[in-house]
Amino acid sequence: MGKFKVELKKVVDDSYDILIGHNLKRTLVEDISNGLLGKIKKFAIITDTNVLDIYAQPIYDLLVEKNYKADIFIVQAGEKSKTRETKSKIEDAMLEKGYRRDCAVIAIGGGVVSDLAGFLAGTYGRGVPFITYATTLLAAADASIGGKTAVDTPLATNLIGLFNQPKKVYIDLEAWKTLPDRQMYSGMAETIKHACMASKELFDFLQKNMEKIYSNDITACEYIANYNCEIKYKVVMKDERESGLREVLNLGHTFGRAIETVSDYRLLHGEAVAIGLVAQAYLAKEKGYMTESDVKKVIALLKKANLPTEIPEYIDREKLIEKLYTDKKVRDGKLRFVLEKGIGDVVCFGENLYATPISEEEIRNIINNYFE
Amino acid sequence: MGKFKVELKKVVDDSYDILIGHNLKRTLVEDISNGLLGKIKKFAIITDTNVLDIYAQPIYDLLVEKNYKADIFIVQAGEKSKTRETKSKIEDAMLEKGYRRDCAVIAIGGGVVSDLAGFLAGTYGRGVPFITYATTLLAAADASIGGKTAVDTPLATNLIGLFNQPKKVYIDLEAWKTLPDRQMYSGMAETIKHACMASKELFDFLQKNMEKIYSNDITACEYIANYNCEIKYKVVMKDERESGLREVLNLGHTFGRAIETVSDYRLLHGEAVAIGLVAQAYLAKEKGYMTESDVKKVIALLKKANLPTEIPEYIDREKLIEKLYTDKKVRDGKLRFVLEKGIGDVVCFGENLYATPISEEEIRNIINNYFE
Repeated sequence: MGKFKVELKKVVDDSYDILIGHNLKRTLVEDISNGLLGKIKKFAIITDTNVLDIYAQPIYDLLVEKNYKADIFIVQAGEKSKTRETKSKIEDAMLEKGYRRDCAVIAIGGGVVSDLAGFLAGTYGRGVPFITYATTLLAAADASIGGKTAVDTPLATNLIGLFNQPKKVYIDLEAWKTLPDRQMYSGMAETIKHACMASKELFDFLQKNMEKIYSNDITACEYIANYNCEIKYKVVMKDERESGLREVLNLGHTFGRAIETVSDYRLLHGEAVAIGLVAQAYLAKEKGYMTESDVKKVIALLKKANLPTEIPEYIDREKLIEKLYTDKKVRDGKLRFVLEKGIGDVVCFGENLYATPISEEEIRNIINNYFE
Repeated sequence: MGKFKVELKKVVDDSYDILIGHNLKRTLVEDISNGLLGKIKKFAIITDTNVLDIYAQPIYDLLVEKNYKADIFIVQAGEKSKTRETKSKIEDAMLEKGYRRDCAVIAIGGGVVSDLAGFLAGTYGRGVPFITYATTLLAAADASIGGKTAVDTPLATNLIGLFNQPKKVYIDLEAWKTLPDRQMYSGMAETIKHACMASKELFDFLQKNMEKIYSNDITACEYIANYNCEIKYKVVMKDERESGLREVLNLGHTFGRAIETVSDYRLLHGEAVAIGLVAQAYLAKEKGYMTESDVKKVIALLKKANLPTEIPEYIDREKLIEKLYTDKKVRDGKLRFVLEKGIGDVVCFGENLYATPISEEEIRNIINNYFE
């Protein structure tokens, strides 16, 4: 019997910059010319039908102008595109167009595009670099820090994927102006989540400045884009592999993801998270972690952001309960929720222990007696 | 405009052990009991129809005996199972059976199983640990060092995948006895490749001891299992991301992979590589890197190993040339081959420059005038 030791210890540097500003299309292409991605000359632009004309096409034109090879791969806008099948189709189209390992991926769009494109880049030729050009508030809040990329499957959301860091993220605040209202509201849910879990200050700012943000006030938008990065960064930095602390980012998401799936994506992600934030607040109140008044404040802020706070009538509540059990935090068949503590903090049981076990009776009580 | 720096520098330790021995089923389960994978209690065994009864089932039984949760996920033996579709099917089956992020994958089989299962483990729940139990000579030579995992697509082999290191590799020499002859011969091709590219000593050993190995002489088998690990380790250690040196492992593979695909997998991987080794030797002779006598020695060794050295009649030679252009080493539309220099060395043009540009005329000349 022989033994062979494979030594693979090394320093990995996945650091990158996030640029927050107005209209960063030229900046992106200039960064590439200036060597952001080394000698790479071929760019697979992955985008969706929403931003094809206003962002992907102009960036494509700028790249071609500089003599780079580029192609645009378009997915239908919406969560339903985040599948293994879409990933395979783009891979095949890229192969067909001759893309090999000497290319990079540019994801232009919201969270769906960056999740899908980041995952695809991570497995294409066993990994090619990618850049994210975030055109939605949701992507700015959610997808630009953390390196979480994934697709959905019929049985679970976000369970097949990778931790894969982009080489740079561009948050284009101008793009927020072009968002349909409902998309903008939906994106706000993750910002409110960040406020609920980590910052009373941000919560108060949102209460006072929601109208300003929704009318694209530059200073207010920059403020929240920055604040989102800071909060997420603090959490993610300490826990890159989601072993514990990062679970707090799941605030509102256990319930949110379940209701999003049961709605068959009639609810946008942020809308589902908004309802999830209400559900966890009710649970937190039941458990004594939040006062009635705190819960009301959370609901009021969500309403101010034009987000739903009730379970839509078309939702099958039994299916919803069943779906909760597919959550990643489920251990040994038991539901676990991250819960808010007051406003701007979460319940913690000890180092890296943030998920409260919740019985089926408890959640059933919330669903049947707290919601309308 | 604001800038946000995400600092993600860290030390990663992917070191692992390779155990070479006879019948390691109990050892594997004991290692797990002793904490090889921490507290993980759920094991998805991925295997193929060839070794299900003799290896996967006994290991499953031993795990269940120790009160672990385990399930066996079976793929049809053969390269055709290495697809995105098979990966999706196993993922869905695992989700159905309640596997979440708190599980590990055990790959039991040859290179196809470890490539597929290693890739699957790398994206399941954004990465769960995996162990490889290699039951073929090919897996021992090829799949146990390097962390290369992948699936094939209609347009390219091994292009969608990951670098993903196992937590431990078990090379069970006893399993070689159960291999069909053709599989054993096929596995020998990678060992001969290692000898051609890096060790005259191993080449000579194989010339002298082929019969011993094929009759499962313990000492001879351990010798080559170890030698394979050493050669591959030296190459891989210096170049984990395949930026240059690792290209030498592609000796015989540019041609080999192309002919494997064009044969629609009638040729086993090693058989295709054997023909590829002959093709690169002819090219090396044309370019003045090998003597006529060296080329004859390589062909003689392949024949001794019962491997093919001619292009089968059913191969469409024009399709074969076309297919060569899908190789990962193609840059700017130009073919590049790793070439042998004498026996036990490869052609090198400078630091990490191992791939020789070959014109279509040159390879066409080899295919039409050197092969029968």
